Amino acid sequence: MSYYIEPLSLLVEQLAKLPGIGGKTAQRLAYHILTLPKEQARALADAIASASEKVRFCRICGNMTDQEVCSICTDPTRDSQMICVVRDARDIMSMERARIYRGLYHVLGGTLSPMDGIGPDQLRIKELLSRLDGVKEVVLATNPDVEGEATAVYLFRLLQPMGIRVSRIAHGVPVGGDLEYTDDVTLQKAMEGRREMV
Amino acid sequence: MSYYIEPLSLLVEQLAKLPGIGGKTAQRLAYHILTLPKEQARALADAIASASEKVRFCRICGNMTDQEVCSICTDPTRDSQMICVVRDARDIMSMERARIYRGLYHVLGGTLSPMDGIGPDQLRIKELLSRLDGVKEVVLATNPDVEGEATAVYLFRLLQPMGIRVSRIAHGVPVGGDLEYTDDVTLQKAMEGRREMV
Repeated sequence: MSYYIEPLSLLVEQLAKLPGIGGKTAQRLAYHILTLPKEQARALADAIASASEKVRFCRICGNMTDQEVCSICTDPTRDSQMICVVRDARDIMSMERARIYRGLYHVLGGTLSPMDGIGPDQLRIKELLSRLDGVKEVVLATNPDVEGEATAVYLFRLLQPMGIRVSRIAHGVPVGGDLEYTDDVTLQKAMEGRREMV
Repeated sequence: MSYYIEPLSLLVEQLAKLPGIGGKTAQRLAYHILTLPKEQARALADAIASASEKVRFCRICGNMTDQEVCSICTDPTRDSQMICVVRDARDIMSMERARIYRGLYHVLGGTLSPMDGIGPDQLRIKELLSRLDGVKEVVLATNPDVEGEATAVYLFRLLQPMGIRVSRIAHGVPVGGDLEYTDDVTLQKAMEGRREMV
């Protein structure tokens, strides 16, 4: 496209590779970046390079960290008898943001999906099994979709015979949600998971 | 937020400064960037830094360029008797993409907006006047909004006494548009701008 100058078309091309950023948005972002003061554009570029450079995965739980072991695994105030199993590291952030859980985490790095060639060996299940010493409860917090459920059932069957309490996070109508707009499967889960009021 | 590691939170913060990118999207993009191979993240960072570094504005028309004078101004095949006046450099890209105009451009760098303290002196109008030698027609292609119209009227009153033909791009129902969903002002413009069929 001759009406694009080289550095601009390169930038648009790079931005358009990001998820959810189409051609038009990439173009708009690129123009915005070009109108930024040089030091602000440089700060953005540096943040990308430095995050990609420094962030790695916790040797124990698989969380994102800039250390060898993440700040949750090294926190002595956290309950080491509980492990919450999640699909990926960003799920940990969501849980932590809600401030409702004080145990440890374990990142699977995906969910079982035979169609995509992801079996138990592709997930960090071996690493989970090696951490179970002294653990009383494993909370399965994979997503409530087909793969997440299958993974939860697989882990339940694996862990239960080892005498560990295995739980699954509750699924139901979200707080602030509306029955009218809730899908059937969620309603079914909400009904199945109903609890007696006291 | 203690659940974010430093390089990640810095990246999220930088991304959230981009237009149309909120906190959630910034977080999603940041995670995506972290999962990219290091060389891909580096390529994105480099594209941003290099675009911001290299791109500047054409000394003559105000278009974006990596040279002193842009490729349109230096193109001998373009009609130097016509100047199309646009608000900013990205409008040039839109026009060029449509491949319907072979004259030169002039970027105003904004539109008249007294409320925001933007008067004629804040726009590149002096630069436009200095380019009019030998120019037969000036096409006003500012946007069909209040500021764009005001700017067009201002330029018309300025240029017409100098014996230059001044035209305005047509406004009307867009091609592929539907009368039913077209707003009243556009319909009014479409009606006013009607042309006899031959």
